[in-house]
Amino acid sequence: MNIAEGIWPPAATPFRADLSIDFDRYIMHCRRLLTDGAHGLAVLGTTSEANSLDLTEREAVLERLVAAGIVADKLLPGTGATSLGDAARLTGHALGLGVRGVLLLPPFYYKGVSDDGLFAFVSALIDRVGSGRLKLYLYNFPQMTGIVWSVALVGRLRAAYPDIVVGLKDSSGDVAYLDKLLESYPGFAVFPSSEALLLAALRKGAAGCISATANTHVLEIRRLFDRWRESDASTLHDRVSAVRRLVQSYPLIPAVKAILAARDKADDWRRVRPPLEPLDSKGRGELLSALTKLQQTAVPA
Amino acid sequence: MNIAEGIWPPAATPFRADLSIDFDRYIMHCRRLLTDGAHGLAVLGTTSEANSLDLTEREAVLERLVAAGIVADKLLPGTGATSLGDAARLTGHALGLGVRGVLLLPPFYYKGVSDDGLFAFVSALIDRVGSGRLKLYLYNFPQMTGIVWSVALVGRLRAAYPDIVVGLKDSSGDVAYLDKLLESYPGFAVFPSSEALLLAALRKGAAGCISATANTHVLEIRRLFDRWRESDASTLHDRVSAVRRLVQSYPLIPAVKAILAARDKADDWRRVRPPLEPLDSKGRGELLSALTKLQQTAVPA
Repeated sequence: MNIAEGIWPPAATPFRADLSIDFDRYIMHCRRLLTDGAHGLAVLGTTSEANSLDLTEREAVLERLVAAGIVADKLLPGTGATSLGDAARLTGHALGLGVRGVLLLPPFYYKGVSDDGLFAFVSALIDRVGSGRLKLYLYNFPQMTGIVWSVALVGRLRAAYPDIVVGLKDSSGDVAYLDKLLESYPGFAVFPSSEALLLAALRKGAAGCISATANTHVLEIRRLFDRWRESDASTLHDRVSAVRRLVQSYPLIPAVKAILAARDKADDWRRVRPPLEPLDSKGRGELLSALTKLQQTAVPA
Repeated sequence: MNIAEGIWPPAATPFRADLSIDFDRYIMHCRRLLTDGAHGLAVLGTTSEANSLDLTEREAVLERLVAAGIVADKLLPGTGATSLGDAARLTGHALGLGVRGVLLLPPFYYKGVSDDGLFAFVSALIDRVGSGRLKLYLYNFPQMTGIVWSVALVGRLRAAYPDIVVGLKDSSGDVAYLDKLLESYPGFAVFPSSEALLLAALRKGAAGCISATANTHVLEIRRLFDRWRESDASTLHDRVSAVRRLVQSYPLIPAVKAILAARDKADDWRRVRPPLEPLDSKGRGELLSALTKLQQTAVPA
């Protein structure tokens, strides 16, 4: 087994004026993330606006990345859907391209579903995909899905599918949940969704992190990952955490895109698909100037 | 304009042992609902487990119904999706078959989205579908979607698209919301999701109802709709409300399917797709015997 670890940014997706995907800019962005230190790319996640992409676009994104020469083994795409069939279709397609594994949201339309119902969903998905190469990373984001991959259910899934259910990305921000997972399942690849939680989580055995702000600050986050046992780890942690706190004080996806737009001098980056909205110019101005100030005052590494 | 009114059951979807759709049973069920008094069918709704069907299955359902001779003008399918493109695809496909209109969930992955963001989504959808025949019925179900079509947003959409945004199905159970809609927008086709709210809503100008339990009790609900101005309306209301209260004291979709299984002597009806689970035999036994008792003690019409 070759389980993912390290920093896997959920690459943001740039759109043209007609809201179609700007694949050239997208591939440039993905290449740069890898160059700047990402271990791989958790494409088609929440930050990527994957659930605002059509099913066929989600497939096209992976095909374009692979065609552009990005090694599929460095891809960890989101393939969740509300229906078993669509989740199986996306998962099978991604595996066919050779991806490292997939991030699986729970089926997120119906609420109040039981662990048994979720277990049945994953089990049926594994059967349908029918591949010995399948590696599932559960994607926990109750603020969006209304559903938790409970610690008990994770244990049941691991026990039933030890070679398939190999990790979890936690976007809940619930440190007690994260700690419980890390404590209960050593060797399970757990990724918090924020670099502000990375240092503490690495000390408890986390695999790395999959963070929206790794789209804009992958270099600094990678440095923290590489040096978390060193004496300057706390300083590196404080620095990435301050940036993260600032960025997430705005709507996160529009804020990440506003920073990319400023960095690349490309206003196109600011576009999001509805129902999301871009930051207004006031918010953008405040965010960018606060970010500049923060980076100027940061202690040099 | 030919706006929907009356009783439009959200037809339940029967599954075979391999969880594929049992189209023969489905078409039989839909025909029977129409024979028993449904004005039309709100197919592919929550009770239909539409979000547990693949996109291609959702298209196939409509094609099969039309091929089976069910008049498309009696169909009001759900065509919502988290992405604009998939929602536009499903809506365009349904309109191409000649349906009366479509029920539109808000894009339901991202939470905390603004009225402006939702307005932009609907507006872009209308542009993409680009059909003078489009009739949208907004589908409000915050317990599943985490999103409300606010009364203010409904007003904005009606004002911008008076010939397109013509109605709303409310599954929130929030009577104050329902009343506010009815009061604010006379002529807007509002459908509560429960026959227990039907009589009061009709008195305030509602169009009818789209109720899960119309799968099993359409005849009685239709009678209430036809006689709501008559002296026995309260008696009819009490009777359908008692049944509704009983059925919804169980998980609603599995309970509806358990009743259909008993009525048609077809255990296959009990199947649901994961993450939902069927009622266990104890729950089923209790529900069915309580239902029988209720129907025996009901005052004759």
